[in-house]
Amino acid sequence: MIQTNITLSVNLQPAYAITIGRHLTPRVPHKKVALLADSSVAPLHAERFKQSLERGGATVFLELVPSGEPAKTLEVHAQLLSRLSQLGLTRDSAVVALGGGATSDLAGYVAASYLRGIAFYVIPTTLLAMVDASVGGKTGVNLPEGKNLVGAFHQPKAVWMDLDTLKTLPERVFREGAAELFKHGLIQNPKLCDAVLEAEFGQDHTNFAQVLADAVQVKIDIVERDPFEQQERAFLNYGHTLAHALEAATHHELPHGEAVGYGMHYAALVCEKLGYADLTAHTQAFLDYQQPMKLPALDWHTLRGFMARDKKADAAGVRFVVLEDIAKPKLERVPENVLEAAWRAFEGVTKR
Amino acid sequence: MIQTNITLSVNLQPAYAITIGRHLTPRVPHKKVALLADSSVAPLHAERFKQSLERGGATVFLELVPSGEPAKTLEVHAQLLSRLSQLGLTRDSAVVALGGGATSDLAGYVAASYLRGIAFYVIPTTLLAMVDASVGGKTGVNLPEGKNLVGAFHQPKAVWMDLDTLKTLPERVFREGAAELFKHGLIQNPKLCDAVLEAEFGQDHTNFAQVLADAVQVKIDIVERDPFEQQERAFLNYGHTLAHALEAATHHELPHGEAVGYGMHYAALVCEKLGYADLTAHTQAFLDYQQPMKLPALDWHTLRGFMARDKKADAAGVRFVVLEDIAKPKLERVPENVLEAAWRAFEGVTKR
Repeated sequence: MIQTNITLSVNLQPAYAITIGRHLTPRVPHKKVALLADSSVAPLHAERFKQSLERGGATVFLELVPSGEPAKTLEVHAQLLSRLSQLGLTRDSAVVALGGGATSDLAGYVAASYLRGIAFYVIPTTLLAMVDASVGGKTGVNLPEGKNLVGAFHQPKAVWMDLDTLKTLPERVFREGAAELFKHGLIQNPKLCDAVLEAEFGQDHTNFAQVLADAVQVKIDIVERDPFEQQERAFLNYGHTLAHALEAATHHELPHGEAVGYGMHYAALVCEKLGYADLTAHTQAFLDYQQPMKLPALDWHTLRGFMARDKKADAAGVRFVVLEDIAKPKLERVPENVLEAAWRAFEGVTKR
Repeated sequence: MIQTNITLSVNLQPAYAITIGRHLTPRVPHKKVALLADSSVAPLHAERFKQSLERGGATVFLELVPSGEPAKTLEVHAQLLSRLSQLGLTRDSAVVALGGGATSDLAGYVAASYLRGIAFYVIPTTLLAMVDASVGGKTGVNLPEGKNLVGAFHQPKAVWMDLDTLKTLPERVFREGAAELFKHGLIQNPKLCDAVLEAEFGQDHTNFAQVLADAVQVKIDIVERDPFEQQERAFLNYGHTLAHALEAATHHELPHGEAVGYGMHYAALVCEKLGYADLTAHTQAFLDYQQPMKLPALDWHTLRGFMARDKKADAAGVRFVVLEDIAKPKLERVPENVLEAAWRAFEGVTKR
C-alpha cells in the first residue's frame, strides 16, 4: 500500500501547512537552523531530521533542552537566546522544535523573542503536542507563580507530524495525549470521543492518521476564527482550569494530559451541577481508559488560589468553559459554591 | 497664554494617540496598573502620574526598576513578571512605563510577555525616549552577547510626552536625545537639523513642543509604512550600526545618544567614501553641539565583530543605512575596505 500524507492548511497570517504521515523529510529555506530537541527524544529521532534539514541546504545546530516541562523556564529561555547569538543566528535564521508540547512551547518562545522574532517550525513527537501545542501559535514558559504565565503568540511556518515518532512513545504518554483528542471530541466532534474509547489506536496506526487529522482540524477551525483567544478559542481550555491548578498543586508531578483528563471530569461535574447535560459518564469512561496517576490529598482553597491565577481569569473572576451539551461549549462565570461542590463530588469519585 | 497640547495619531493596528504638552494627566481604563518607573525618575515624577492614574479609577502598583540601561536584562524582566503575577495582574490589567527609553523597552517587553501580552502605555521622561523609543512598538532587553537581541513588537495604547519631565533632565542627557532628533532631520526633515544646531531649546520650551512633534512625526510616518522593519523602517537606524558596536565595546559606558552622535558621523564618512553627498560637516557640527564623552582607544576588528551581531545583519553581512544626500536614505551592503577606511578617518577626527 502506498503511504499518502495528509496535508492540513492553517489559514492565519501567514498561512502554513501541517503534514501528517510517516518517514517525513522536513526542509526549510534558511541557511542557519537551531534544532532545539528534547534531550530524551534527540537520541531516538534527532539525527534523521537533522540530516533531512541539511539535505535541504541548511547548517543545522542541534541543541538539547531539558526533557519535558522542566524546559519551560525563563532560565532555559535565557540560555538558549545567548546560545543562538553565539551561533551567529540572524533574522533570516530559523528555530525548529523537536519534542513534545513543552519543547515547542519553549522553542517557540525562543524564536518569538530572539531578535524580536525569527522563523519557527515544529516537529511534534507526542500525541499531546500534535493535537494541541503544534497548532495555534501559543508559546511560552512557566513562572514559579504558575504555568504558562509568560510567552508570545508566534505562529509556526510549518508543522510535520511524523507518526513514526509516536512508535517510540511510552504507552502512558500516548494515553496522556489522548486527553486533548477526547477534549476536541467533547467540544466539537463527538466521533473523536468514540475513536478514543473504542480503538486501541496506540497499537495500530492504519486509521490513526485520519483520526489525528480530524482532531487537529477541530483546533485549526477554532484558531482560525479566533487567533488571539478573544472569545471562542477559550473553548479549547475545556478542563484546563482545574488541570493547571492540579499541575501547580502537584508541582507538575501530574502530567498535563492526565491533569486534563481529571479536569474534563471536574468540568463535567460543574456542568451537571449547573443543570446542563450530564457528560460525567463520558469523562469517567475516558479516565478509565487513561488510567491517570492517583491524586494526592489536595486542599480546595489551595487549588482555588491557583485557579485564580489562570490566564483566563480577569478582575471579575475565573471564566470557566462549560458544555451545555456535547459539542456545545460556552464561557461562564461559575458561582463559588458550584465550583466547590463539584470539587467535593470529584474528590468522592477520584478517591475510590 | 493658554497652553494647548499637540496630539499626534499613530495609525497602526490598533491606532493610538501621542499627546505632547505640559501638566498632562494620564488616565487608563484598567482596574489594575503596574507603574514601572526608573528609580532615578520616580522620586521626581512618579507620585504625580500615580495620582492621575488613580483618579481615573485604577489601582496603581508603583514598581521601581534600575535606572537606565542596567534595567534591560532578562533577570530584571523575569523578576518583574513574577511581581506582576504576585500582584494579581490579569489579562485586562496594564503596564505603564515611566522613564527613558531603557525603562520603556523593558516595561514594554514585560507587558508583551506577561500572559502573552497585556496593555502597555508610555510616559517617556527623556528627549531620547520621546523621539525614539516611545514610538514604533519595539521593546526588549540586552543579552550579554549584545544590545536589544531579545524582545517583541508590542505597540503602546497611548503615549504622554510631558515637557515638564524634561525640565529635570541633566543638560547632557538632553543633548544625548538631540542625536535622534538630528537623525530624523538627516533622514527626512532637514529643518530639524537646523532646529537642533541653531536653538538652545533645552533652555526654552516655547517652540519646543512643535519641534518635538515634527521629529516624532518623522518616526510615525516611517513606522506606519513599515511596522515590522521589513524595509524602510531600517532607515531609522542611520548611525546605529557603529553606535551599537561602540556601546558594546565600551560596556555601555558611552550613552546611547552619544553613541548615535558618533555613529552618524561615521556613517557620513562611509557615505562620503562611497561617493555620495558629503554630510560630514553637518555631523561634525552636531558632535560639536553634543560634546559627547571622549572615546577610549578601540580596536577595529573588535568593533567589526560587534557590528556583525547587529540585528540588521543577515547571513550575507551587515546592511548599512547610507544617505545618498540629506533626506535620501537607503540600505546598502558596504564593502569591508570602505567600512574600515571610514573607521580610520573617524579615528583621525575623534582623537583630536
